[in-house]
Amino acid sequence: MRRIGSSPSGMGIPEMDRSRPETGCRLISVSKLRCGFRPNPDVTGLHSGCIIRIPSSGSSRTSRMDRWRGTNMVVSSSVRWRSAAMDDMRQVFEAVVKAQADGETAALATVVHVQGSVPRHAGSRMLVRTDGSIVGTVGGGAMESLVIKEALAALADGETRLRTYALNDLAAGDPGICGGTVQIFIEPINAAPTLIVIGGGHVGLALAELSKWMGYRTVLSDDRAEFCNPTYAPGLDGYAVCKPSELPVHTRIDHRTYIAAVTRGMPIDIDLIPALLATDAAYIGLIGSRRRWALTVRALMEERGLDEAALSRIHAPIGLELQAETPKEIAVSIMAEITMVRRGGTGAPMRWFGLTESDFDGIE
Amino acid sequence: MRRIGSSPSGMGIPEMDRSRPETGCRLISVSKLRCGFRPNPDVTGLHSGCIIRIPSSGSSRTSRMDRWRGTNMVVSSSVRWRSAAMDDMRQVFEAVVKAQADGETAALATVVHVQGSVPRHAGSRMLVRTDGSIVGTVGGGAMESLVIKEALAALADGETRLRTYALNDLAAGDPGICGGTVQIFIEPINAAPTLIVIGGGHVGLALAELSKWMGYRTVLSDDRAEFCNPTYAPGLDGYAVCKPSELPVHTRIDHRTYIAAVTRGMPIDIDLIPALLATDAAYIGLIGSRRRWALTVRALMEERGLDEAALSRIHAPIGLELQAETPKEIAVSIMAEITMVRRGGTGAPMRWFGLTESDFDGIE
Repeated sequence: MRRIGSSPSGMGIPEMDRSRPETGCRLISVSKLRCGFRPNPDVTGLHSGCIIRIPSSGSSRTSRMDRWRGTNMVVSSSVRWRSAAMDDMRQVFEAVVKAQADGETAALATVVHVQGSVPRHAGSRMLVRTDGSIVGTVGGGAMESLVIKEALAALADGETRLRTYALNDLAAGDPGICGGTVQIFIEPINAAPTLIVIGGGHVGLALAELSKWMGYRTVLSDDRAEFCNPTYAPGLDGYAVCKPSELPVHTRIDHRTYIAAVTRGMPIDIDLIPALLATDAAYIGLIGSRRRWALTVRALMEERGLDEAALSRIHAPIGLELQAETPKEIAVSIMAEITMVRRGGTGAPMRWFGLTESDFDGIE
Repeated sequence: MRRIGSSPSGMGIPEMDRSRPETGCRLISVSKLRCGFRPNPDVTGLHSGCIIRIPSSGSSRTSRMDRWRGTNMVVSSSVRWRSAAMDDMRQVFEAVVKAQADGETAALATVVHVQGSVPRHAGSRMLVRTDGSIVGTVGGGAMESLVIKEALAALADGETRLRTYALNDLAAGDPGICGGTVQIFIEPINAAPTLIVIGGGHVGLALAELSKWMGYRTVLSDDRAEFCNPTYAPGLDGYAVCKPSELPVHTRIDHRTYIAAVTRGMPIDIDLIPALLATDAAYIGLIGSRRRWALTVRALMEERGLDEAALSRIHAPIGLELQAETPKEIAVSIMAEITMVRRGGTGAPMRWFGLTESDFDGIE
């Protein structure tokens, strides 16, 4: 289990790097009760710190026993725990945003209820990435290790869970001895799906705009650099200037990737389609008339040896049949089809008219 | 036939007002050939001015005979005709933009070819409104009157036309005697259709954004002012704060108006639907579950006396069945249905797979 944070990426989101603690400021609050604190929480069954809030004091200040002096960890000498929590929370939320921007799935653990003496207050959060690396903390120690395991399970099955941990008796199997209980909500945070728009023409531009508006991580690709850059198509998440057949080398394509090929002709498609069919893309759509598609199918079968089963994965002609005319209407027709595929709809009008008594009976 | 321009509206688009010529500057160029020019082109069969371009002169300057001195028309003493044409053209295009913003249909006449001595150069334009009022000129006189008639016919049948006018012999029925011919392209300019979004909730906001992006003149309506204003929903073409039943009083609704009622409940719908059914709206869609719609139908029939024929006009539940989840996905589902209705599509995926020889034969 890797516990170091990833290094800051090009997304402009600063992130604490735990592998270089001297550059960050990890604030540890420990109560005066002492509870077996050790500098390295991984080697004991105990967590890295305890906080006790004393509501009647009228102050949110807590005492802190700094046992890390002498290490290279920078710890401010006196802090309000609320400030520390705010920093911590921002760091976690920034990591969530970064994961979303990178198209990475992660799981978020949130302390939602505490009772008695526990390491972190309600609202403390930890993000767990698919490789087990974490950002933030829900208290460290053996309890946190259990939460990380639950988080990885949540990533695997896509389900949320609410877990209660008693921190009383190590002998009884509790992952701590603080004397309290902590309830933690663990949820998989799905990254926004990615839409790769291949072809920066009129339809490609409109589609990229609409895709971005709908919240998709949107990547534009074209073999012509002048049709695939942030000046030409501002605000997208990526620009892949490459030959059609090399797209999967330039851009990660997985089961959460949707691909709309709105290309300018058959010669491109014949190189592109075999490369796309070699990926796990959730959706591959191709623009063109039925005639263009039939000719493409013939060429792909005769020249590239693709069979009907492979080619039937392609949604061509792309989009729902709206008789769309303008590039923006075509973009709506395509995003409607992609939504339909993603959510499991049919594309048919929902219009319905229940007039008979049995219609009413059925719904009342 | 009204020939005065409309007064400037609140859209911020300045427009020459022909009923007050002293405030504008109408530039008239007349060739030295003389061709029976009269101050008021409406009372003769002759046009208001002629231009002859002399390409070999190396200058675009033309001589001008100002016969309007003594009237209150302001005419600059010496101009390049190109500047006059630019002013004229901007005025016409601004009128086109204003008509679009106001949801008004108009017809545009463009001189596309000239031969010999004719009143205006190729590229001269005139906008003709449904009431016969005009902006710009294609030469005035009897010829222009014929063009206005053609423009009104184009507005009626929706077809473009290319007309050639000989300006040679009044006795032979020509609408002028300049000695040339002029070819004029006349096209109906359809105003963008209007989408009225009723209900400023999450779906209403997303729908208004998408509608505006697609080029619809977009009006938001809600009975709650705080959900229907330019701060809350920026950049729309109108905000109608009114009771649902009073919407048709506040906003023009015609056969080019699409209405998406994304309201918050049945009590509103029961007042709203009868008012909408009394209009010529091209589309009326209503959000809600089948259950909500069935209960609404029952209430409208029992309490408002509406019958099945009237109610079958309503698209409810609104949108294509994409299993849309987010407000933006629902907005796409609704705009897909509206596009489908407007353009005559079916909503079914266009996906098609032609593999047999006959499939290929049919398309090659």
